Amino acid sequence: MIRVFLTFVACVWAMGAAAQTLGTSTGPVRLEPMASGLDTPWGVAVLGDGAFLVTERGGRLLHFKDGKRTVVAGVPRVKAQGQGGLLDVTVGRSSVRPPYEVFLTFSKPQPGGGAGTALARGYLDASGRRLRDVQVLFEAAPGGKGGRHFGSRVVEGRNKELYVTIGDRGDRPSAQDRSNHNGSVVRIRRSGKPDPRNPFLNTPGVQPEIWSYGHRNPQGAVVNGRGDLWVVEHGAKGGDEINRVVKGGNFGWPVISYGTHYNGAKIGEGTAKPAMEQPRFYWDPSIAPSGMMIYSGRLWPEWQGDFFVGSLKFDYIARLSGLPIQEVEQIKGPETERIRDIIEAYDGSIWFIAEGSGTVWRMTPE
Amino acid sequence: MIRVFLTFVACVWAMGAAAQTLGTSTGPVRLEPMASGLDTPWGVAVLGDGAFLVTERGGRLLHFKDGKRTVVAGVPRVKAQGQGGLLDVTVGRSSVRPPYEVFLTFSKPQPGGGAGTALARGYLDASGRRLRDVQVLFEAAPGGKGGRHFGSRVVEGRNKELYVTIGDRGDRPSAQDRSNHNGSVVRIRRSGKPDPRNPFLNTPGVQPEIWSYGHRNPQGAVVNGRGDLWVVEHGAKGGDEINRVVKGGNFGWPVISYGTHYNGAKIGEGTAKPAMEQPRFYWDPSIAPSGMMIYSGRLWPEWQGDFFVGSLKFDYIARLSGLPIQEVEQIKGPETERIRDIIEAYDGSIWFIAEGSGTVWRMTPE
Repeated sequence: MIRVFLTFVACVWAMGAAAQTLGTSTGPVRLEPMASGLDTPWGVAVLGDGAFLVTERGGRLLHFKDGKRTVVAGVPRVKAQGQGGLLDVTVGRSSVRPPYEVFLTFSKPQPGGGAGTALARGYLDASGRRLRDVQVLFEAAPGGKGGRHFGSRVVEGRNKELYVTIGDRGDRPSAQDRSNHNGSVVRIRRSGKPDPRNPFLNTPGVQPEIWSYGHRNPQGAVVNGRGDLWVVEHGAKGGDEINRVVKGGNFGWPVISYGTHYNGAKIGEGTAKPAMEQPRFYWDPSIAPSGMMIYSGRLWPEWQGDFFVGSLKFDYIARLSGLPIQEVEQIKGPETERIRDIIEAYDGSIWFIAEGSGTVWRMTPE
Repeated sequence: MIRVFLTFVACVWAMGAAAQTLGTSTGPVRLEPMASGLDTPWGVAVLGDGAFLVTERGGRLLHFKDGKRTVVAGVPRVKAQGQGGLLDVTVGRSSVRPPYEVFLTFSKPQPGGGAGTALARGYLDASGRRLRDVQVLFEAAPGGKGGRHFGSRVVEGRNKELYVTIGDRGDRPSAQDRSNHNGSVVRIRRSGKPDPRNPFLNTPGVQPEIWSYGHRNPQGAVVNGRGDLWVVEHGAKGGDEINRVVKGGNFGWPVISYGTHYNGAKIGEGTAKPAMEQPRFYWDPSIAPSGMMIYSGRLWPEWQGDFFVGSLKFDYIARLSGLPIQEVEQIKGPETERIRDIIEAYDGSIWFIAEGSGTVWRMTPE
């Protein structure tokens, strides 16, 4: 009886998909499909009123509430090409009543046919119909014409500052060149201005928004309870990294890496160099990581403080724990096909996007 | 424009009441009336799907969701007399999908016309229409005929155990008499059985559910992040207490107290006695405390770890902080009339019941 009911609820947006059970180290978990039939979903965020938002890379922002799906109007125009399009979505940490403060990252069309990773903010009422007062807070300069390595996650720090991760746009040397934003993490205020405590504000020729650089393509980010920023980034072959981001840090790409080029060629100067940061963990072989979360909820006390990272390539959720951190578990099933994003909802449930099936899943203890 | 919208949302259940602003030590807060026109509301609990539950002492359990109010069927029959009736409501900590596990405390009619504080559990689907599989897990023996001092809060410990607070039923010596449950905190498993680690399981003539005793009328309870149980209780005149409840502890009523009888007479033997626990804080004059919460949310980082206690008598919310704990703030306005319950919702907002106006308020930063 209980199972029948749950399946019914889960089906509202799943168009036939049913709740599933999956084994984990702490016992079975229940997976409910909250939305399915999505076209290349990229980011998911929950609202306090039981609604949630999902981006589709092609440019749509969708609002789901009690079985009703709404395509949100007023979303910025994106250049949906290659890995670019409408990317991350997050809601301001203190925004728990409408109008909700919604942040979006996207590849913003630029004059000449290129695009740059950008951050916009808008406000959404409880109906989810239209994003209002939309403002572009940040746009990477100079962007680029290629369709690769946009990043891009947006996360909020402890003092309301915003971090946006930006890939190297396929232009490797640009990650070491601080006159542009590519291959960096930027830190800005909600006004769009560089954070006044940024490291290079007074360094000539350096973009003032830069917080750290030498990144390849960070597609996961999280701020922990102490306010530290962590990112996970796609490396070269055998060099996907988890990094604890420090102020002004140079994370080495493409000078140092634990990976090799995909054609087998050596990268740069090796694995370590003075004044360049070491990863806290790296995967060899590469898993193609996207989405990152640190669990803090009540549903799995055993997992509190652990990292969860999605794998696009090997179709699993990595759980990492310990000091130094290690991958301690692979949560894997037919439902974990190409994990693109993973978040913790207010109630402690874990939500993730399976890009492979175009589904948003909600995980709770069985 | 924003204000107009919020007021509209707030009015759905407020029948005309509007959102209000109140000053606090950390800046203004917004109060939204989530439900009003209630008849002696006693307990409030939120569900993960945006719905919430409210008890009315007369015996109704109400389910609110998106502007729809449902009277929940299947609630146990109560003896609504004096301070008795349908009292607390809480939802299992891990119960984040339907059917939700709902706990209710109430004064259960007993043969001969009396009533005893009891705990029932039932399961509620997302419609909120009917509590199913209702089971009485605990009933105080022997109860009593009077209409005073039932307690009664129910809170969940870290290992899924349940604590229920029980008043002395106006029969003062019974609080020291462990052959009955009056004036005690009981600890049981979800099966209704005494917790196997209870202190008096092997003590002849003692009720095996008792975890602590010597309480007068505890109407607030909370388990902190370390698993410690704290209660707040109505004392005699000038003797309202916050207690950190320890296993097997004797909290002294009516042998010791910082209060006096309301007729001015001395109570028992003074304020302290060997083998009896001291309060962690007491109020003189008494505030008539009901409802207790420790804040852990993201909306007010400054308040994390602080206690919040409602005052029935002086119409405010007490914030307590520090070691030893002290009352550091009184949150007070026309909306805080006779605070009966106070909880933290999943999203970090603070919800409280103003019994005076029959309103459930939700507090968020302005």
